Amino acid sequence: MKQKFEQLYQQYRSMLVDNVLPFWLRYGFDRVNGGLYTGLDRDGTILETDKSVWFQGRALWVYATAYREMVQKAEYQVLCDSLVGFIEEHCFDPTDGRMYFRVSKEGKPVVKRLRYVFSETFAILGFAAYSRAFNKPEYAKKAYDLYKRVQLYLSTAGILIPKFETPSKGFGLPMIMLNTLSELRLAYPQKEEELNRDIDGYIQEIRTYFIRPELQIVVEQCNLDGSLQLDHFEGRLLNPGHAIEGAWFVLNEARYRNGDPDLMNLGTTMLDWMWDKGWDQDAGGIIYFKDALGRSATEYWHDMKFWWPQCEASIANLSAYAMTGKEQYLLQFEAVHQYIAEHFLDPEYGEWYGYLHKDGTLSTPLKGNMYKGPFHIPRMYLVCCRLLDELRR
Amino acid sequence: MKQKFEQLYQQYRSMLVDNVLPFWLRYGFDRVNGGLYTGLDRDGTILETDKSVWFQGRALWVYATAYREMVQKAEYQVLCDSLVGFIEEHCFDPTDGRMYFRVSKEGKPVVKRLRYVFSETFAILGFAAYSRAFNKPEYAKKAYDLYKRVQLYLSTAGILIPKFETPSKGFGLPMIMLNTLSELRLAYPQKEEELNRDIDGYIQEIRTYFIRPELQIVVEQCNLDGSLQLDHFEGRLLNPGHAIEGAWFVLNEARYRNGDPDLMNLGTTMLDWMWDKGWDQDAGGIIYFKDALGRSATEYWHDMKFWWPQCEASIANLSAYAMTGKEQYLLQFEAVHQYIAEHFLDPEYGEWYGYLHKDGTLSTPLKGNMYKGPFHIPRMYLVCCRLLDELRR
Repeated sequence: MKQKFEQLYQQYRSMLVDNVLPFWLRYGFDRVNGGLYTGLDRDGTILETDKSVWFQGRALWVYATAYREMVQKAEYQVLCDSLVGFIEEHCFDPTDGRMYFRVSKEGKPVVKRLRYVFSETFAILGFAAYSRAFNKPEYAKKAYDLYKRVQLYLSTAGILIPKFETPSKGFGLPMIMLNTLSELRLAYPQKEEELNRDIDGYIQEIRTYFIRPELQIVVEQCNLDGSLQLDHFEGRLLNPGHAIEGAWFVLNEARYRNGDPDLMNLGTTMLDWMWDKGWDQDAGGIIYFKDALGRSATEYWHDMKFWWPQCEASIANLSAYAMTGKEQYLLQFEAVHQYIAEHFLDPEYGEWYGYLHKDGTLSTPLKGNMYKGPFHIPRMYLVCCRLLDELRR
Repeated sequence: MKQKFEQLYQQYRSMLVDNVLPFWLRYGFDRVNGGLYTGLDRDGTILETDKSVWFQGRALWVYATAYREMVQKAEYQVLCDSLVGFIEEHCFDPTDGRMYFRVSKEGKPVVKRLRYVFSETFAILGFAAYSRAFNKPEYAKKAYDLYKRVQLYLSTAGILIPKFETPSKGFGLPMIMLNTLSELRLAYPQKEEELNRDIDGYIQEIRTYFIRPELQIVVEQCNLDGSLQLDHFEGRLLNPGHAIEGAWFVLNEARYRNGDPDLMNLGTTMLDWMWDKGWDQDAGGIIYFKDALGRSATEYWHDMKFWWPQCEASIANLSAYAMTGKEQYLLQFEAVHQYIAEHFLDPEYGEWYGYLHKDGTLSTPLKGNMYKGPFHIPRMYLVCCRLLDELRR
């Protein structure tokens, strides 16, 4: 077993440092204007010159964390410095301090989304990792200050424009905040107590609203009073990859709290239920959406296989295995590993494809856009290497 | 030939009056609250109790037009009266007169979209058809007044919130306005001169900005100065079904103007170019999206077969055949007809499926949602019956 894990560790480390990270450095890094393009074709050709604000922060997290945990390559630092500069100079709207969603290659505003704070949460992730990797405490402080601004946006009526006239509760926010704050806490231990309290609050929100034993599901949206919206497509929507991502965030918190059994139970329950809903027994892979009551989907990409749910399922199953020792999680991890190897890897040009049909055939061969870039895939290799490093010893 | 067209006329008429219109009357008509549900499963079970504002207007156009052109069934009138009542009572925001996008079954606001005027244009279509079918001139006036409000929204800065910080021109607006105004003109001939002038303006906009001989494409979006946005996914996006819908709107206007040769040439050119881009030579059917330069798509549903592009391709090819007599258009019409018969019809429960994979297999079996309901399919049968009625004589 240890030998198997050693082999896998070497394989994942090599995929990260010899394949995925070089791909984006070579084709995505904009050495002229700074920052990173993500709209790349299969072979790295640029398809879209606008830049994703999410990905300036996400890539910063990835390359800074790889620098700290894997290998201290100077080129990672050069990219990280460039990402930080691009974010600070171009990604904030000077009129109100909110972040854009998309900017031009030179950093001119293109799209600002008023409904979400995800540009901000990914910048917090990035600043926190940057401060740790390169010993820049001022960026831990900046990450914390940005978090305080996010809190203000979330708690002040009229700043975030909701999609629905009657507000709902969404799983995405507490789930992302759990991950964001756990990274921020590592960078800014001065505020550990406060951040622990906030993390507890978000976990409590997940437990109260989105964990539904009556249907054995993690739901994406519900009413403010906690009732399910079973008459509506959105209210029945299950996003197994998203819930499984939340599962390993919870397991990660359990690990931080020395194996807290309640959190371990919560995380593995989320994984068990949503693996059951999400894994395609026919063709393999985690599908995109499922209806909570098994009714017909309205999302026409519901049965497609996207790259990121496979990443999240890899991490969640390997985490659960490392923490519980249950063989079932190892088998599930191996099933995902095998599916990725057979369908997502591109041996010719490197990196992964992103979008497969239900049957595993390729829908579009591009490597990146506003939603796919250096995040889920390198994060999977990074987090799995952490776990494999324990398991191989 | 005439016999073939006679047979096809009878078949399409029967699909309309014996299959599609009864499906929505039976399962969608809300006799309790008024208006129409469209979120229906394969067998008509309600999947979503909220109502689409677009479809209150669209269904009104369909049932009123079927009443006027096909068969004067009392139940069509009952539904039309209910749709009009529901629209007038529940679909306008009393605070500013703008229309909602989605309301609850009782008509409470759920989603209001600030970027578009399509709820309004479909209500204009519906009111115009209602006034003609049931001899209610006051609704022709209401349709016209609503059009004047739309003009105001389009010409007043700050009312419609654009997605992009730098405004672009989109094909969708002039294309929809061309259809809307041609229907309004039939209902409100008092303003024929003004509406002709406005229609001329929209056709001129289509010619100037979206017809691109250098690439033989109809593009969906460009800069205000007419330059293409070839560095961006949106700027290279082709939507063949949408462009082909525009093609038959133009042919329809050519027909209204006694076969105006310039318009005929414009319409058939749009059809020729975009049939070439859109028809799937491998598996049949019109695909959803294509990149203008043949690069990789970022829209992961780009190669799927949706119901509505097939409807638009049927109408456009049959129109072009009826007006030019070129056999190529009849062959193309027959290819679409055959593809629909083999893949979209549901002999067991009636109506059509909406969403197929590239290979023609079913993605989701539902019959309706906020975007699929009684519009493109019954409109195709209605408009094709008009054309077949000429061709059979």
